[in-house]
Amino acid sequence: MFMVSAKEERFYDLFVETAEYASKSAKLMVDLVTNYNNIPEKVKAFEDVEHKCDAKVHEIMAQLNKSFITPIDREDINLIAKVLDNIVDEIESTAHRFVMFNVTAMRSDVLDFANTIVECTGELLNVMIELKNMKKSKTLIKKIIEVNRIENVGDALYRKAMTDLFRDEKDAIEVIKWKEIYQYMEHTLDACEDVANIVEGVVMKNV
Amino acid sequence: MFMVSAKEERFYDLFVETAEYASKSAKLMVDLVTNYNNIPEKVKAFEDVEHKCDAKVHEIMAQLNKSFITPIDREDINLIAKVLDNIVDEIESTAHRFVMFNVTAMRSDVLDFANTIVECTGELLNVMIELKNMKKSKTLIKKIIEVNRIENVGDALYRKAMTDLFRDEKDAIEVIKWKEIYQYMEHTLDACEDVANIVEGVVMKNV
Amino acid sequence: MFMVSAKEERFYDLFVETAEYASKSAKLMVDLVTNYNNIPEKVKAFEDVEHKCDAKVHEIMAQLNKSFITPIDREDINLIAKVLDNIVDEIESTAHRFVMFNVTAMRSDVLDFANTIVECTGELLNVMIELKNMKKSKTLIKKIIEVNRIENVGDALYRKAMTDLFRDEKDAIEVIKWKEIYQYMEHTLDACEDVANIVEGVVMKNV
Repeated sequence: MFMVSAKEERFYDLFVETAEYASKSAKLMVDLVTNYNNIPEKVKAFEDVEHKCDAKVHEIMAQLNKSFITPIDREDINLIAKVLDNIVDEIESTAHRFVMFNVTAMRSDVLDFANTIVECTGELLNVMIELKNMKKSKTLIKKIIEVNRIENVGDALYRKAMTDLFRDEKDAIEVIKWKEIYQYMEHTLDACEDVANIVEGVVMKNV
Repeated sequence: MFMVSAKEERFYDLFVETAEYASKSAKLMVDLVTNYNNIPEKVKAFEDVEHKCDAKVHEIMAQLNKSFITPIDREDINLIAKVLDNIVDEIESTAHRFVMFNVTAMRSDVLDFANTIVECTGELLNVMIELKNMKKSKTLIKKIIEVNRIENVGDALYRKAMTDLFRDEKDAIEVIKWKEIYQYMEHTLDACEDVANIVEGVVMKNV
Repeated sequence: MFMVSAKEERFYDLFVETAEYASKSAKLMVDLVTNYNNIPEKVKAFEDVEHKCDAKVHEIMAQLNKSFITPIDREDINLIAKVLDNIVDEIESTAHRFVMFNVTAMRSDVLDFANTIVECTGELLNVMIELKNMKKSKTLIKKIIEVNRIENVGDALYRKAMTDLFRDEKDAIEVIKWKEIYQYMEHTLDACEDVANIVEGVVMKNV
């Protein structure tokens, strides 16, 4: 058996720092749709978080290439980093759509969706904080299940939002815009669930 | 060389059971679009199959984590399970769209598409049944090629359905609805082909 | 240490040949949107390149299964081949959309996009040509960064094209058509960037 050194433990901290960017951009989204003004400036803040997240993922990859041994499987480190990055990408893409589509009036269910994403990325951050203790953690699996539960809430929100949209909105161009915004929000939650599922697999292999 | 024990052979049975869910939901789709009534109740049947399929995939992952040796590469087992699950997810998502979009009248090519998906998932089930005998099978490669052939038929159906839609339908909201339904159906066949391609790679490595 | 034999070096040539198909279909796209006539016949040329690219990827997979040792990690060979193939698939899908959507008038930014794809696939081909010399190359990393730079240019083009489309086009069916064409073009550049990122990872591991 190898001892896993402090340097290898660094991966857990890098995951936490990456997950913090996901949580941060989710909070920016709640602000965007709540105080819907100065959109182009606000979108710059999402881009900024996305660039920092990219740099963090690059740091994880560089660390991975330098590390002879790793605390969990290399391919899982790679996947966790990439899918955490996907979350931030999806949120940034959602933000861009408000500009590209020249959205001027907000739909009320968008805030519910954004709050659900804050909740889900927050719980995923808790998963990442707890991952380091996976061998003795009593709460890690509960937190993973919680991410899955919130994703299911998001699925129901998505179906409700789409059903309402197709029932109420008669302007086809408005339908195109909101359908895509809701889809990006749903994909964001899917990416959160993907990370939770990969971590669940890691726990199954290591405990 | 290791002997592969009965427990490891279990993976082949689990693949067959997962592929049966894909075939089952394809048949539900033919029924949905043929006898287009009681939609919300019928959609529950898709959700039920999807949940059972998820549980089966979870069983495969648990078996994988318990198994010291596996009859085929671990990453191939992982991939086959996930992409079989994708097929069932795509079909369930298609079914949900009939509700979300409040579809009231059926287009005739949807039944052709649904029948093609029944044919393709049926042949994929045959691939999974035959996989266990890959070392001496005379028919496995033929069945894989048949899945690819049916996917090509689906591609042609998709292009024809889309061409007809954009030529004939002047109501943009109807175009949005049917375009997405056809795309889900095409993605279902893509997922079938993906599984067949992964299995082909497994055969190339093992025969 | 193993010596990598001429047979194993063959992978680099196969990558170059695959990347040439990507570059070739990008050039077909510039011709299609510049001389917009005889569309069905021109689309056949994209299909022809796509089939040849598929055959090349199949050759890479067969070579991989026959090779006991490989010059770079097996999973990286697999991934590079598949994502190069994606580029050609995305370009073929773009071409099909001009037929399926019965596009009769061209938008000017489509040519800018197509030229950017020619530039990006051309630079990616240079990356593939240089990959063989990764251990002593002074230019490989610069070429990879150049692919990333061009992809960023494409992102800006995409946002501009979409913003203009949603501001100017009042016919919802036209919005549906062009939104999807732009998305395929952006995905083509994403696939180029994906290949460049995988190659960057390979270089980090091997130099």
